Formats: sequence, C-alpha cells, structure tokens
Amino acid sequence: MEAKLPAGVFAAALTPLRADLELDPDALARHLTRLLDDGCDGLALFGTTGEATSFAIPERTAALEAVADAGVPMHRLLVGAGACALPDAVALTRHAVETGAGGVLVLPPFYYKGIEDDGLFAFFDALIQRVGDARLRIYLYHFPKMSAVPISARLAERLAQRYPSVLAGIKDSSGDLAHTRALIERLPGLRIFAGTERLLLDTLRLGGAGCISATANVTAPQAAAVLRAWRERADEVDALQRHLSALRQALEAFPVIPALKHRTGLGPVRPPLTALPPEVTSALDAQLRALAAAQEEG
Amino acid sequence: MEAKLPAGVFAAALTPLRADLELDPDALARHLTRLLDDGCDGLALFGTTGEATSFAIPERTAALEAVADAGVPMHRLLVGAGACALPDAVALTRHAVETGAGGVLVLPPFYYKGIEDDGLFAFFDALIQRVGDARLRIYLYHFPKMSAVPISARLAERLAQRYPSVLAGIKDSSGDLAHTRALIERLPGLRIFAGTERLLLDTLRLGGAGCISATANVTAPQAAAVLRAWRERADEVDALQRHLSALRQALEAFPVIPALKHRTGLGPVRPPLTALPPEVTSALDAQLRALAAAQEEG
Repeated sequence: MEAKLPAGVFAAALTPLRADLELDPDALARHLTRLLDDGCDGLALFGTTGEATSFAIPERTAALEAVADAGVPMHRLLVGAGACALPDAVALTRHAVETGAGGVLVLPPFYYKGIEDDGLFAFFDALIQRVGDARLRIYLYHFPKMSAVPISARLAERLAQRYPSVLAGIKDSSGDLAHTRALIERLPGLRIFAGTERLLLDTLRLGGAGCISATANVTAPQAAAVLRAWRERADEVDALQRHLSALRQALEAFPVIPALKHRTGLGPVRPPLTALPPEVTSALDAQLRALAAAQEEG
Repeated sequence: MEAKLPAGVFAAALTPLRADLELDPDALARHLTRLLDDGCDGLALFGTTGEATSFAIPERTAALEAVADAGVPMHRLLVGAGACALPDAVALTRHAVETGAGGVLVLPPFYYKGIEDDGLFAFFDALIQRVGDARLRIYLYHFPKMSAVPISARLAERLAQRYPSVLAGIKDSSGDLAHTRALIERLPGLRIFAGTERLLLDTLRLGGAGCISATANVTAPQAAAVLRAWRERADEVDALQRHLSALRQALEAFPVIPALKHRTGLGPVRPPLTALPPEVTSALDAQLRALAAAQEEG
C-alpha cells in the first residue's frame, strides 16, 4: 500500500462469473480496466456488489492476484476484507496489503445482531494488531440495511483515536445525507465516501471524499463528469448531477446486482441471488433507453 | 452418517476457548461427553451458541476431527455447516458427512437480505448436488432474529419434495409455538425441533422431535427429565416443564452465550461477542441460586 488510495468516484465492481458460476479473473481484470478508463478514480473490489460473501477465501485471493498480474494499478483498489470470523478477516486483509491494495474495506462481523460497540472495537482492534503492517489502511463499511450491524460514529472515532495512521475512511452506505454529513463533521481526519452517486455532489460540497457505488459499474462516465465539473466548471455541475441521479434512480428500481450483471454482460449471479426474468430485463432496458433519449433532448 | 440422528433433547453446544481465543478441542470433547452424560439425546455443534461463524473453516474441521478421535459418538451430532459462500457450505457439509455426523444444521446464506425463496432453493439445491452423498441428512436452521434470512415453510416443502431422503428436519428458532406447530402440521415427514426448551413439552405434544437449545448447556439434566417424564410419568411432566421454563427464563434474561460461558467455565467468547462484567455475572449467579432454592422448597 505504498501509493495512497485516490479519492473521488469509485465503482463497487461487479465480479464476473462464467456460466458454471466460477469466478472469471480475466474478465474481472478487463472490467476493472474499463471502469478506470471510464473515469473512475478508484474501485472497490469484493464489496456487496461484488458478491464478496458468496466467494470462499481462496477464490478471492486468487482473483486479486490475477488482477495484479494483469497490471491493474493496485493502489487504486479498495479491497473488501471483512468476514464474520476474525481469522478470515485477518487472512483477507493481510493478503490485500501484501498485494499492494490502496486500502481495505471492512464490514463488521455480521452474523450476530445487537452487538455492542465494545465487541466491534475488540474485533477491529484484534484485526489491526494481528495484521501488524504499517501499510494497512482501513475503510469501515457501514451498510446497516444489508449487514444489519451498524458502525457508529463513536466506534469510528475510538478506532481513529487508537489507530490514527490505520483508520483512513468510511463507506457510508446508509443512503442518508444527514448521516454522511455527521460523519464528515465529526471525523475530519477520515475520508467519507457516500454509498450512492445520487449523493456525490452533496458529499463533495460537505467536504467528503466522493462516492463508492454499485451502479457506477454502469454510470461511471456520468459520475466522473460530475466530479470533473465540480472541480472545473461549477456552473454545469448541478445539471450533470441531476442527469446522474435520474440514471441512478432508474437502475435502483430493480434488484441492483442482477440488473447490473445484465447491463454489463458479466455473467450470472451466484445463489442466493437470482437472475432477473426476461420481462424484467426488457423493462429495465426500455427504461434506460427512454432516459437516454430524454436526456439527449433535454 | 450411517446411524440415524436421535430425536429428543439437544444442547447447542458451546465451543470452549483458551485464554488466547484459540479453540480448545480437548475441552470441547469433554464438554460434549458431559452433556451426553447429563441426558442429552444429541448435540448441535457449531450453531449460533457455538460461535460457528466466528471460526475459520480449518478451525471447525480440525475440531470436529478431534472430537471424533476422542470417541464422541458422531451419529449423535448435528454439525453446523451453513455459510454465506456456497463453496464454504459444500466444504463444511462434505467434511461433516465424512466424519460420520448424524446430520448437518444449515443456516441460509445470511449476508444478503430480502432474498427470494428461489435464490435460497438454488443455494440448497446446489449444496446437495455438489456434496452428492447418499449419507447426507440436512436440518434447516430457521433463526430469523439472528440470520435475518428466514426459511419459509414453502421452501422447506419444496426441498423435501425434491430431496425426500436428504431433507430430514428443521430447527425452528423463531421462539413462536404457532410457527413450530405450522411446520409440524405442514411437514409431517420432517423432524421439527423447537429452538428453546421452554417449548419442549408443547413441541413434543404436537408431534415435534424435541428441542435444540443454547441454554441446555446448563439445563440439560432438567430438560432430559421433562422428556423422560413425558414418556414415562405423564402426571409429573407439567411441573417439570414449569421448573425447566423458569430456569430458561432466568438464563435468557442475560446475553446468553457469554452467560453460558461464565456458568460452564468454558473460557472467553470471541469478538464481536463480549464477556459479561463481574457485576452482571454476580447477578446471574445470585438469580440462579435463588431459583434453585425456591425450587427445592416448592
């Protein structure tokens, strides 16, 4: 983790599968390269969108090595490394650090519910101690609707105080701008990413780092355009964000991971996720065509 | 899995840890043997109480082999084998079958929420196909408050129709007798276990198989007494169940896994679970002493 992870627009990359549901590392490297070419500053690998929890550890580490061998710039990757079992989280984190990832994105252990902050602190504390590597940069992954185990601002604060050089940021997938704002204000030393490009401009204006988004697998060029305009052409930025938000809204009306797999042609999803039936993918395609036509006119 | 898993009273066994949080296989074998001596018909290993999700796969398989080597009767064990990743569930299930376990207790993949029955069916279908072993006996693990992914009666029915010789039962940890009753009525070919000894007698009277309970790590003798009385001395069974339920109620007022670890002296819990502070363990001990005294008098 020598080079610093960039801020800005991140896609939470899909994980391409072959028809037999095996991970396709070559297609993954190509997809990551395309997303960077489309204007992503960085990429989250093996997050929720990447079906991380549907893969065994050896599948994840082998894919990461294949991506590194294919020449993907590793310092631009935020690699999912959370797990319910501490030894698994240690193994995934250590491997990501050694492969040169710019950071790791760490879910809390998510089986037990109603867990106290002390228990989560003990988990992250043990993780950092056991990995024991000065290159480690941790981004906490707050996604209460999916993990059902929230990461409180107070927990992030405790970890940042104890490990100021390790705790680097938070992916706030609450979808709630007030929550993102509170994190930015309370944790000025951390990079706060929104979990949706719908909140990209708002987050940037509040001093946040950008967004890490599932739908950016499809909307990367439009999201990158917002970020560019925010830096260079402030008069256009609101219109570009409206355009981006409309696209996001259309996509998120569908089950998002299979919808994105359909739109990108990156193969099936693993169970327990399910493919969209043809009438649904047709509706999705029609809606995106209509949106593109309206935006060309508008 | 040559000998059939018994029905009746099962403890969901605790997993003993050393002070360094490493699993202690010798203490585990001793604990399982003690629970069988205390009157348990069978034992669930690596369920929620056993902190299953806090252990890496090699830790779980090594512990199961150590237990087999120590002479624990494997056909009386129901071994937790669920995982979020299909390859992990396949590995755990195959290993349990090969080690001679009487059955496997399978959580649904529990990261993604709001999953459709079709997705869960595809997961269990792929699991059974990939394990491909005629000795396989699956018990579905329904614990919606913890997994946040319920297993519907309709899903169990579909699986039982497709795999009548594999699908053997359900552990219903809903805590809701009406739900347990519905499962018993709808799925007469399956063994339905309640997830708490509070419902042991009710479940037996409805035609269910018994209970698989966390607190039976402590209440095994009293739970076994209810089962014996139900078979042999019907006039005493209600009083014994009241006694048992009072004990359960006292225990479940505390965070149950650390409370049980304290009462059994089986070492610490792994993060994210937390130990009970001394004032709480003192209160627990006092409450159980008072209950024992009241029951001796009563």
